[in-house]
Amino acid sequence: VQAEIIAIGSELLIGGRSETNSLFLTEALVPLGIEVRYKTVVGDRERDIEEAVRRALSRSQVILTTGGLGPTDDDITKKVISKVTQRRLVLREEILKKIAKQYGGLKRPMPKRAERQALIPSQAAVIVNPVGTAPGFILTHEEPRLSGHDRQAGDRPVYLIVLPGVPYEMERMFSESVTKFLENVVGPSPGICLKTVRSYGLSESKVNELIKDLFLANKAVQLGLLASPSGVDVRIQISGKRAEEAEMLSQEVVGLLKERLGDHIYGMDQTTMEAVVGGLLKAQRITLAVAESCTGGLIGHRLTSIPGSSDYLDRVLVCYSNRSKMELLGVPARTLREHGAVSAAAVTAMAEGLLKAGSVHLALAVTGIAGPTGGTREKPVGLVYIGLASTGLPIGGQRGESHCRFHHFAGGRDTIKFQASQMALETMRRWLLGIKT
Amino acid sequence: VQAEIIAIGSELLIGGRSETNSLFLTEALVPLGIEVRYKTVVGDRERDIEEAVRRALSRSQVILTTGGLGPTDDDITKKVISKVTQRRLVLREEILKKIAKQYGGLKRPMPKRAERQALIPSQAAVIVNPVGTAPGFILTHEEPRLSGHDRQAGDRPVYLIVLPGVPYEMERMFSESVTKFLENVVGPSPGICLKTVRSYGLSESKVNELIKDLFLANKAVQLGLLASPSGVDVRIQISGKRAEEAEMLSQEVVGLLKERLGDHIYGMDQTTMEAVVGGLLKAQRITLAVAESCTGGLIGHRLTSIPGSSDYLDRVLVCYSNRSKMELLGVPARTLREHGAVSAAAVTAMAEGLLKAGSVHLALAVTGIAGPTGGTREKPVGLVYIGLASTGLPIGGQRGESHCRFHHFAGGRDTIKFQASQMALETMRRWLLGIKT
Repeated sequence: VQAEIIAIGSELLIGGRSETNSLFLTEALVPLGIEVRYKTVVGDRERDIEEAVRRALSRSQVILTTGGLGPTDDDITKKVISKVTQRRLVLREEILKKIAKQYGGLKRPMPKRAERQALIPSQAAVIVNPVGTAPGFILTHEEPRLSGHDRQAGDRPVYLIVLPGVPYEMERMFSESVTKFLENVVGPSPGICLKTVRSYGLSESKVNELIKDLFLANKAVQLGLLASPSGVDVRIQISGKRAEEAEMLSQEVVGLLKERLGDHIYGMDQTTMEAVVGGLLKAQRITLAVAESCTGGLIGHRLTSIPGSSDYLDRVLVCYSNRSKMELLGVPARTLREHGAVSAAAVTAMAEGLLKAGSVHLALAVTGIAGPTGGTREKPVGLVYIGLASTGLPIGGQRGESHCRFHHFAGGRDTIKFQASQMALETMRRWLLGIKT
Repeated sequence: VQAEIIAIGSELLIGGRSETNSLFLTEALVPLGIEVRYKTVVGDRERDIEEAVRRALSRSQVILTTGGLGPTDDDITKKVISKVTQRRLVLREEILKKIAKQYGGLKRPMPKRAERQALIPSQAAVIVNPVGTAPGFILTHEEPRLSGHDRQAGDRPVYLIVLPGVPYEMERMFSESVTKFLENVVGPSPGICLKTVRSYGLSESKVNELIKDLFLANKAVQLGLLASPSGVDVRIQISGKRAEEAEMLSQEVVGLLKERLGDHIYGMDQTTMEAVVGGLLKAQRITLAVAESCTGGLIGHRLTSIPGSSDYLDRVLVCYSNRSKMELLGVPARTLREHGAVSAAAVTAMAEGLLKAGSVHLALAVTGIAGPTGGTREKPVGLVYIGLASTGLPIGGQRGESHCRFHHFAGGRDTIKFQASQMALETMRRWLLGIKT
């Protein structure tokens, strides 16, 4: 089954905001056996929306639109769709009541224009919006079958699914209502399995070299490599006759990828490095403290994005000034004077000082030059030291130790900060797994 | 002049990666007086690309394609474009030499397939790629003018600009070669001026209500509102006969917006809240320390994303455990026991303790419940306390004081963290500007 997505909204054409709804929809449609073949972005111009919808009706079985359902004057999706499908807009009392109730809950009078949100094309099935005011709807449209210049007997049903543009509203509505509808319409989904294997520490071309024969060997296996500062993701799409077949084949392929890429693989699918490190800390009952300089809190932010991180994360100290490094971590003034704040001696003193001050099992310290200024010939922008110090551990029995490494990252300030945070997390991952580095 | 963008590549249709090239191009075309009216994403299927290009030729004057120019088999943009425009692909010796040289520099043998990158449709102007191997090109295509069923006399030139998909290659090539070409083709750019006014603290519909008459009054002024956890951005696009005229009119409109939205406006264009706060701290020579609990380092990360933040940011303490709140900030055990870590008493003690410990002018403290667990009936997920404590200040002469506020944010863990960080920065901004809250 082939689908297309039409994103509506002039704000999507004047730059500044990336259109992310279609990413969500594309991924959500795969397990249903629905392939997105086109994406179109149009502004709030009536003629342009109309053309895009007509075009889509002529070539796709499932059409999803996002945006243009709000109460303001430039929201004209419903008007255009009712015109193209030759239906009237009907005021639905049950929606009107719900909207009035929502305004009541907010203790605000319902503006007149909010009523427009209760207008729905006739014979459409309403999609309830559990987190906002604008409902969506699904229309089954009979499109005449055209072959060359002759009209064949019978019509072809096209499913028009109209959703709002606010991402979290759209996502909830899709998951709670649209998925079920599509499952009924499309029938038992053929076997399509989408998996992502996430690696760190190898270049894109190195990953390609290591795995490309796996994909050439089997037509049912499609791959895509995505390189980013997080590492290289291997995305695989597997087709089988049935879901179980695709799932079995995908497990086989993932097994082969694990053989080839080894401990460079840190996780699957949406798993982030911080989630992996958090899981290891929790499982091994290790408490952590972090001292950040150039990363400025990013490592703390990433670690605390994992629910339950308070179980293992005791504190994060962003020591931006030399004074704070001395006061909070006990880094000797002499170390800073003789070696500088960006040095192996400083990062080791930071990690060891933090280990003592925090009474934790593991202390991570990061110091470096994020730029754009502050670099020198010997210590260029992008130079980052990462240090680990540990006491004896509660589980596993590793002995106390400390070590440090330096790295050199390229890019702008944000990219250097992110790469430093990713490498710091990777350093912990490898240490927690006992991988030689 | 109307343009459209066609992004080519199956990887853009299997989710996971957002298509950002079109954002760059859309913004870069505005000052040239070129408006993007459609964006299309298609996969690497020959038929789909062909249809998209034919469609674009029929309705747009400038067409930009990105992607599908690499040496691999699925890169077929050139093949399709030469077919649609009825040209041959010609091997360009000068490109071949350049590619061979690049491989030589990398000390790697040039693979046979790399030669394909030197094939260019006849009569096309090559766009040099200064940072990669795949060159782009510009084709001037004569499209028959069709009006109804009659062909009018003469043809209409369409400019087909073919660029690679790697963002930094595409951006360099656009800026260094395409801009100049388009300036010549399009003629002196009419006045189009794009500005963003960024506000915080008002809802989207409130902003709409306050300003909509400004836009209804003048046809040359177009607006778009973008609501996000950062606040509500008002994007305005102003057309004038000449650049100076548009610039003058835009300044007038911005002035009116400032009257209407007042001190809810925190910045213009790409300016972030952290940049505004950083600028104020720097100008007023105020040093800052931050104690974060639920935001987990995000405030520190945002403040340190501004180059030169070490001038005013002394330290950020992420005190995730009660123990760290006591040890690092001197919060009394009794306060935590009687009021809990998420309370007015705790946030005030955190800010005041930090002010002393850090010897800074201003101390910010944030504590709350980011969820998804940990909420109770009295203290639900999303409850966040923000506290400020200050000594007498070096400039301006405000007296020492401390105050705190609580807020309730909705959304998932990440959204709550971000909203809390934005509100914390806003709290500092208002305090630094002496705005009553």
